[in-house]
Parts: sequence; structure tokens; C-alpha cells
Amino acid sequence: MGCLVQKYGGTSVGDVERIRNVARRALKARAAGHDVVLVVSAMAGETNRLLGLVRAVTPTPNEREQDVVVATGEQVAVGLVALAIQAEGGEATSFLAHQVRIVTDAVHGKARIQHIDAGALAQTLRAGRVAVVAGFQGTDDEGNITTLGRGGSDTTAVALAAALGAEACEIYTDVLGVYTADPNICPSARKLSRISYEEMLELASLGAKVLQIRSVEFAMKYRVPLWVKSSFSEDPGTLVCAEDAAMEQVVVSGIAHDRNQARITLRDVPDNPGVASRIFGALSDRHIEVDIIVQTAAREGRADLSFTVNKPDLAAAREVMASLVGELGITSVESDGQIAKVSIVGVGMRNHAGVAARMFRVLAAEGINIQMISTSEIKVSCVVDEKYTELAVRSLHTEFGLDAAASEGIRG
Amino acid sequence: MGCLVQKYGGTSVGDVERIRNVARRALKARAAGHDVVLVVSAMAGETNRLLGLVRAVTPTPNEREQDVVVATGEQVAVGLVALAIQAEGGEATSFLAHQVRIVTDAVHGKARIQHIDAGALAQTLRAGRVAVVAGFQGTDDEGNITTLGRGGSDTTAVALAAALGAEACEIYTDVLGVYTADPNICPSARKLSRISYEEMLELASLGAKVLQIRSVEFAMKYRVPLWVKSSFSEDPGTLVCAEDAAMEQVVVSGIAHDRNQARITLRDVPDNPGVASRIFGALSDRHIEVDIIVQTAAREGRADLSFTVNKPDLAAAREVMASLVGELGITSVESDGQIAKVSIVGVGMRNHAGVAARMFRVLAAEGINIQMISTSEIKVSCVVDEKYTELAVRSLHTEFGLDAAASEGIRG
Repeated sequence: MGCLVQKYGGTSVGDVERIRNVARRALKARAAGHDVVLVVSAMAGETNRLLGLVRAVTPTPNEREQDVVVATGEQVAVGLVALAIQAEGGEATSFLAHQVRIVTDAVHGKARIQHIDAGALAQTLRAGRVAVVAGFQGTDDEGNITTLGRGGSDTTAVALAAALGAEACEIYTDVLGVYTADPNICPSARKLSRISYEEMLELASLGAKVLQIRSVEFAMKYRVPLWVKSSFSEDPGTLVCAEDAAMEQVVVSGIAHDRNQARITLRDVPDNPGVASRIFGALSDRHIEVDIIVQTAAREGRADLSFTVNKPDLAAAREVMASLVGELGITSVESDGQIAKVSIVGVGMRNHAGVAARMFRVLAAEGINIQMISTSEIKVSCVVDEKYTELAVRSLHTEFGLDAAASEGIRG
Repeated sequence: MGCLVQKYGGTSVGDVERIRNVARRALKARAAGHDVVLVVSAMAGETNRLLGLVRAVTPTPNEREQDVVVATGEQVAVGLVALAIQAEGGEATSFLAHQVRIVTDAVHGKARIQHIDAGALAQTLRAGRVAVVAGFQGTDDEGNITTLGRGGSDTTAVALAAALGAEACEIYTDVLGVYTADPNICPSARKLSRISYEEMLELASLGAKVLQIRSVEFAMKYRVPLWVKSSFSEDPGTLVCAEDAAMEQVVVSGIAHDRNQARITLRDVPDNPGVASRIFGALSDRHIEVDIIVQTAAREGRADLSFTVNKPDLAAAREVMASLVGELGITSVESDGQIAKVSIVGVGMRNHAGVAARMFRVLAAEGINIQMISTSEIKVSCVVDEKYTELAVRSLHTEFGLDAAASEGIRG
């Protein structure tokens, strides 16, 4: 049997008893004949505690030094997990990013992995030991500590699985797998047994918080079979893998929602070349990410332009727009922080016509006004008033045959 | 002006306000024209918290992994101190041991520094930045994290001062300097303005907890002027430096005491070659350190043998002795955990006769029985009943002219 990479999130190593549980799971995989690499996040709450210390010293921390402080959370966790494996009678060695080595660019706080030299890990595995690797962190070319951003441990795990040619990467979390919708707001949501990389990528982007987006991109690029499992259950979880014919028979695989966005609408924007570039260039200069952009057809040389930003960026985005009003002759800047983006996702859409129309009909039937629309090959997103989030998700879940009773057997 | 290394202990960086204080002190030294290197310990209580986590996972931790966990305390501290310096308007970069690099042997938990490559530090200093280095930690040849043992940050600081050719190394702590005796038990104790390396070495070995012994050895070997200062005061502190003529005029520089020892006495040990080696070899095999050893002259081929061990090792030492009783024909093993070692230290003893006799006379006059005696060129130690510790220290302090009123001016 080959190599297995298992990633455990903060709640899975949240206390000593849970750390022991992780150790036992790792040794079970070893006993089954796998070479085992664990990727471990900081104990639940630890990253926030460390960020709190940083903020107490300065509200505007240098990102290199913040990374030095924050990376200790994973360091503590890998040491403790290695010790727990030894206490259970196994053999284990912990690795920090610079010991592996996991080389990233120098963008502190959201560094990207550039390459992995897995030689030291491979040697440890050959010696029959479990390798316990600190997630979330990297080292740049000059030996500075970097971090990969929230959820970065997922990416560490998938990148290691790719570098080691692992047969699978298992992401352990506190849910049983990937669901057709968020079970907290949609009681009929079902766990999926399989989902394609493309769909998972859309779901991750759309606000389903199970996996970091970049980890899915990595898995897709290197064709790493990715399991999402619960560390508190023996449930097989959800397999994220390449698309196949059976998947395409299902029109919609899941419903995602995202309440973390806000909308800005600019009235009477001049319909001239360079105006959009001026507006979105100014936002980009302030590092404000824009998601959906919708522009109406121009009337008398002017058009309305709406876009969404992450809710915490709304005030900054309004400031940027206010600074452009005079220059561009915009008549008004409106904004709305009470919105939600509700999306349907499915590779089957490619082969099924009229899916978007069906979505709009369902929302209309519930009296939900659609403020913005955005589509891709395998998803349709609608921005609606935030108060309709649950209603929209549940109605769409039923309409597209995802309720537990309706579709068990097709994907399960 | 040259390079200055300042070391701040755990209480000096115990909270955010104290960290800011350290930042201001460092920038004051920069403003005075020094290149400044800070060596920082973990925030007070943090190392114990981390060790607590380790012990909760396993009572017998692998030392490599324990070092991985414990070394995070200093890592958090250097990041926060660097941030605090930046917040005060200065420029600073933090360094971990592997970034400096501080190379040690592979003896986890009490590694020894083998060499320091200070190239990266020198570059940072040339750029006008404060270098903030994690104390207590090193990296071995294979890139594993090591730690130097309790107080190891002192050694990091002195070793860096030697490697950088610094003009001085300042050890900031929560006391004003080195005292003639522990002020907690001897109210007339005075702060010394200067003390020789040799005396400091004896005082450190004898239980005065101001400096780690190895840091003094390093300072003596590389002739680094070492200041002991308080980070909460502008007092100049105590200079630890090479011996000079003025020092030799003082017979006794300080009185040390150590209550962390226990005595074992073996009755009727056969006076044969190899017996002592058998006894102390067996203790060494169990990593039990022995301090004072006293053997009576043999009578009828047998002698009594007494030695002291650290109090926590007493039970283990008794076990080892019990296992030898039959083999060696020892008639009894006695032990006493209620002892103290009281010592007088001074380079002046070399030129003054009768110092030991004067010590014994003082103790006798107070009715204190001497259980064991050990001497070196510049110290005399007596083991006495623990309950006499304060009385012995105070009487000797007065006898050798160390009380505040008596000797101000000679050394002050």
C-alpha cells in the first residue's frame, strides 16, 4: 500500500484527548500498511490567541513578524501529536516547514507554495515512522517563516500528497463530509459520497467552508483523491475526485450560500473606455477583492454598475468610490450590507438546459427578488436580500431533488 | 560605538507593557550609537505552560519533540518584541536559532552551543536594524530544534556577544544585580558593583540563580564584559569581568546557599579499589549528578562515605544504593533531605590564610554543626542542617565584612 496524507484541523487536535485520538487514527492507518504523513493545524483557538497578542502590541503589525508568532500554533501541535503517537507505542517525527522543506513566495500571511522538497519526509517514511508536518506554514527562499492564510493546512496536506505521490489525502474536520447544503440552515441536507473537483471548487469559492479553495485547486491539478472526513466518526466521508459519467446525470450537486458579502451600486457611470478599469483598479490598489460585477446596458452614454465585496471591506470600498465620484461624474453611490449570495452548483448543468431559469422561477415563486446574477459553466449565483437566505436555500434544495428522501441512491 | 547584546528574561517580557519597555530600552541603546542585538526568553510562565501540555500527553516525553513544543515560547516573544520596536518607530527583525544560525550538539533539553554563524545578524545590524534573537534554542547539524536548558538564554546572549565581538553583554533580570548574599534571607546584603568571572562562576554553581553557569563560562573564556541589570530600573547593575588587584583585597565577595540538595551516607564501605567507581558509576548511569563527596579515613578496611545529590534525585539515588548494599557489604544507607549548603566565595582567599577556619569558627559559635566540607581555591562550602540556613548566611555575611554599613566603598 502507498502513502496516505491525513490532515487534522484545529478542533481535531483541540485538547489532549483529541490529540490521542488523532494518534490512534494515524497508527491504525500504519497498521493497515500505509506510509502515513499527518498535517496538523494549531489547537482550536490558538491562532486567535496568538493574533490577539500581536494586536495588543500593535494594531498594524508587520506581516513577517506576525507570521513568526502565529506559526508557533502549528509547531506546538506537531510536537504534541508526535509525542502522542510515541505514547501509543508508535514512532513519529515532527517537521516544521523549513525542515520539510515547504518553500513559498514571500507574501506573508497568504503565501503560496512554490515547491516542496520531500526528501527528508520520504526518508522518515522509509524508516517506518509517521511524519507529522506543521500545516499552514512555509519558508521563503531566504528562510523567513511564511503562513498560507486561513485554512492553509488543507493546502499543505494536498501539496504534500502531490509531492509524495500519495494515493489519497484525507482532510479530517468536525463534519462528516461535504453536504448538499449547509445542514445548519437546511435540515434536509444530505452528505455527498462523491463530488467532482470542479464542483468542490465552486462550493469552496461560494462560501462552503469545508476546504480551502487552493487545496482543491492543487488536488485537481495533481489529481490527488481528496477525502473529507470527520475525526470523530468512522463514516467514510466525501470523496472529491475527477468527474465521471454518473456525476453528470445529476443536474445540481449542492446549494451554497454566502452572507459575507456586501453590494455597492454606482448610478450613471459614464460608458467610456477605461472607466471600469479606473474603478476596479482603485479597489485593487487597496487590496479589496471584488466578486460579482454586473453592469446594465448603457442609456444615453451612462450605465448603472453594481459589484460585491467582502462585508469587512465595505467601508473601505465606499471610501474609494467616494474619491472617484467627482472625477467620473457618478450621480450616486449606494450600498447594501444585508445581502446573501445563493448558488446552485453541478457539473450536470453543462448537459441540461434551462437550469438557471428553473432557479429564477423557484425564487420568484417564493417572492424573493433577485438583485444580481452571475453564472459559470457549472454554477448559477443570485444575490438576494439576506433575510431570504434560508428560504432560498431550502426551496432550491427541494426543487433540484436534493432532499434526503428524494435522491438517496443516485449519489449516495 | 560597537555592538551591544541585551538579554531580557521572562519577567522582563511578561506582558505587553513590559515588552514595550524592552523595545524602548533597545531603541535608547540604538540612539546612543550602538548596534543592538536583543536576546529574548519566553514570556514568564509560558515555558511551564508548554511543558504542562507535553506532560499532559505523556509523562515520559521524547526530548526532541519536547524541544519542538517548548521552543515556541521564545519564538512568540521575539516576534512580539520586534513588533513592539517597530511600533515605537524603530526597525527590527526577529531571528530563530536556525535563522541565525546557532548550531548546537544534539543533546535535546540541555544542548551545548558549538558554533554561531552570525553573518545574517551582522547584515541586519549593518542595515541599522535591531536584531531580536530567540534565546534558549539552537539547531543541530541536521536541522532539529534543540534547547539549552533552564537559563539557556543567558548563554545564547553571551555566545552571540562573543561571536559578534560585542563590547558588552547586558543580562536584564528582575533584580538590580549580583548581591553579596540572597537579600530574601540576608537583609544586610548589598549589590556588588563588580565581581570576577571566577567568583560569579562559583556563586552560580552554588545556587545563586542570577545567571546560568555556562553563560559565565562563555563570558570568561571569550572575555565578554557581562552586566547584570534590572529591566525595571536605571541602576547600573553589576559588572562581571576579569579579576583585578582591587578584587583580591577583599577576602570574601559573597555568601551563597543552596537548599536543593540531599545527603546520602553509606556506612562501612569496603576500602577496596573500584568501590567508589562502582557506586558513582551506578549513579551516573541513572543520570544522577553528585555534588560534594566526603570519605572518612578507613578503619579496619572500611570507611563511611557521604555525598550530596539534587533533592529531586534523592529517591532514585536511594534505590541505586539499595541495589548495591548486598554486593558491596555496606551495613547501612542513611539519607537526609533537610540539609543546606552554605558557601563563602572570593578570589581574595588565594592570598589570605585561615579563611576556612574563620568560617568554621563562626558556625561553631552559632551552634551549627558542620556535616560535610568541600573547598576550592576560591570557595569553602559547608553542609549544615537546613534549619540553620538563614543564621549561617547572616553570620558569615557579618563576619566577612559584607554588611552594607561595614564595607561600602571597598567594592561599591
